[in-house]
Amino acid sequence: MSLVIIGTFNIDTIETPQVRKERIAGGSGTYAALAASFFTQPGIVGVIGEDFPGEILDIFKEKKIDTHGLETRKGKTFFWEGRYGDDPNQRTTLKTEINVLHGYEPRIPVEYKKADIIFLANIDPDLQEDILDQAENPQLVAMDTMNFWINKKPDALLRVLRRVNIFFANDEEVKMLVREANLVAIGRQLLTKGPKLSVIKKGEHGVLILDEKFVCAIPAFPSECVVDPTGAGDCFAGGFLGYLDKVRSCEEADVRRAAVYGTVMASFAIEDFGIDRFRTLTFSEIEERYEAFRKLVSF
Amino acid sequence: MSLVIIGTFNIDTIETPQVRKERIAGGSGTYAALAASFFTQPGIVGVIGEDFPGEILDIFKEKKIDTHGLETRKGKTFFWEGRYGDDPNQRTTLKTEINVLHGYEPRIPVEYKKADIIFLANIDPDLQEDILDQAENPQLVAMDTMNFWINKKPDALLRVLRRVNIFFANDEEVKMLVREANLVAIGRQLLTKGPKLSVIKKGEHGVLILDEKFVCAIPAFPSECVVDPTGAGDCFAGGFLGYLDKVRSCEEADVRRAAVYGTVMASFAIEDFGIDRFRTLTFSEIEERYEAFRKLVSF
Repeated sequence: MSLVIIGTFNIDTIETPQVRKERIAGGSGTYAALAASFFTQPGIVGVIGEDFPGEILDIFKEKKIDTHGLETRKGKTFFWEGRYGDDPNQRTTLKTEINVLHGYEPRIPVEYKKADIIFLANIDPDLQEDILDQAENPQLVAMDTMNFWINKKPDALLRVLRRVNIFFANDEEVKMLVREANLVAIGRQLLTKGPKLSVIKKGEHGVLILDEKFVCAIPAFPSECVVDPTGAGDCFAGGFLGYLDKVRSCEEADVRRAAVYGTVMASFAIEDFGIDRFRTLTFSEIEERYEAFRKLVSF
Repeated sequence: MSLVIIGTFNIDTIETPQVRKERIAGGSGTYAALAASFFTQPGIVGVIGEDFPGEILDIFKEKKIDTHGLETRKGKTFFWEGRYGDDPNQRTTLKTEINVLHGYEPRIPVEYKKADIIFLANIDPDLQEDILDQAENPQLVAMDTMNFWINKKPDALLRVLRRVNIFFANDEEVKMLVREANLVAIGRQLLTKGPKLSVIKKGEHGVLILDEKFVCAIPAFPSECVVDPTGAGDCFAGGFLGYLDKVRSCEEADVRRAAVYGTVMASFAIEDFGIDRFRTLTFSEIEERYEAFRKLVSF
């Protein structure tokens, strides 16, 4: 077991100006694990209710995602409902039902304990910390979060941040954490809070990555038709870490390539609702887009 | 005479949270011409008042900018005063005084009439059209504009747009012109309005360039210390067109390199107030940053 992902496994209802999709699978863990599964065989930790679609569990199996850490509890799966505006960057949360996440105590299965890479995808930072305490000696710990936790549990979040190597967050979130407008300066300040690598996700504007020695700026893949942006950031992180797990290295050159693979996975995710694009996606399509990306930024 | 630039030649007062700079040289023509002068010897068309700093005219001379088209009229130079917030993307215009621009009728000097490249930098679209009527047979016409003209003279602006090859505008502006949220779709729609190339400037997020056959996405150069963002877009366009004039070609590969040189010129411009960074900038510094940019996006 090399990459273990803890996150949420949701049922989402998503509304865009064109379409409303009722009760489809979502969540940070679902998206990140599926994106990573194109590069490696991740294990997942999280909780679902009795209504989580069996069909998605079949996809996890087919993609060789280890589900020993996915607990099924009595009751309903964590539910989120959101609406996107004409501008897909404008998202409104309409409803959140914690359901089985209430009182959930994550347990890492014995076979996950020696994971080399732990990804604490977006979830309550107390649960992220709990998992981190159970891992034995990970080589690399990455975390993601969201504005909700920065507001609600800043202390717990900063405690986890001190223990991670890679911090993924979007531009709005990092501006909440570091009171500063310049993203390069923010990225550097984040490095003083624990992580060795700041990965600032900027949605349609790509990603800015800083460590102490290098800066990497990667535009987003230009997508003319964004069907559903839900999970794009989780897929970025999943692709990024899946690639690092595959190459078993975290040198600058690996990080740069991981950023492009992450970008490619996010660009596929938004082409259809929920995880639907991953149903048919092939690795050769991923490689093809990776090469198209090379062309995009060439000069 | 190969590149001719029409634009405004201002006196600006600029306030940032740290510093207030009174009455320094600015304007779309000033910035674009200085940026272009590192690659070629542009001619400029515009009007100044008696109070325009002679010291700046000396810099134009030193940089071999042809000022035969720069008319001096009685009265005061066009004046703009603006304030930036802690986030340099937030700009408030405090004062605008038209002064000598009032009733100005631009005249292209005879020696400019055979210009290969005409750059209609941001100025009243009626003046842009007037200049275009006076040019004899330019190979390449580029234009820039601003939200003010999109609101105030949309018909004149669209008339000019039909006659240009390259359209530079920022993301806010193009969203006003094309009612659509997706920048790739906007870029494509702009191509139906006249230009062969849409160049969408996104400030700190870089630039997105589309023609019928290719897409080019270039991040901004990561600047940790933005002193004064005024004129960054004009310097981008000036560097872009100066480079195209230098290489005398406009193939895809040239456009991609031009975009990086434009990005580099904008990144220098914002490092000091007004045009101050260009006083000491050398071509080898430009080449050095161009190479650093290659590293930035490499993978």
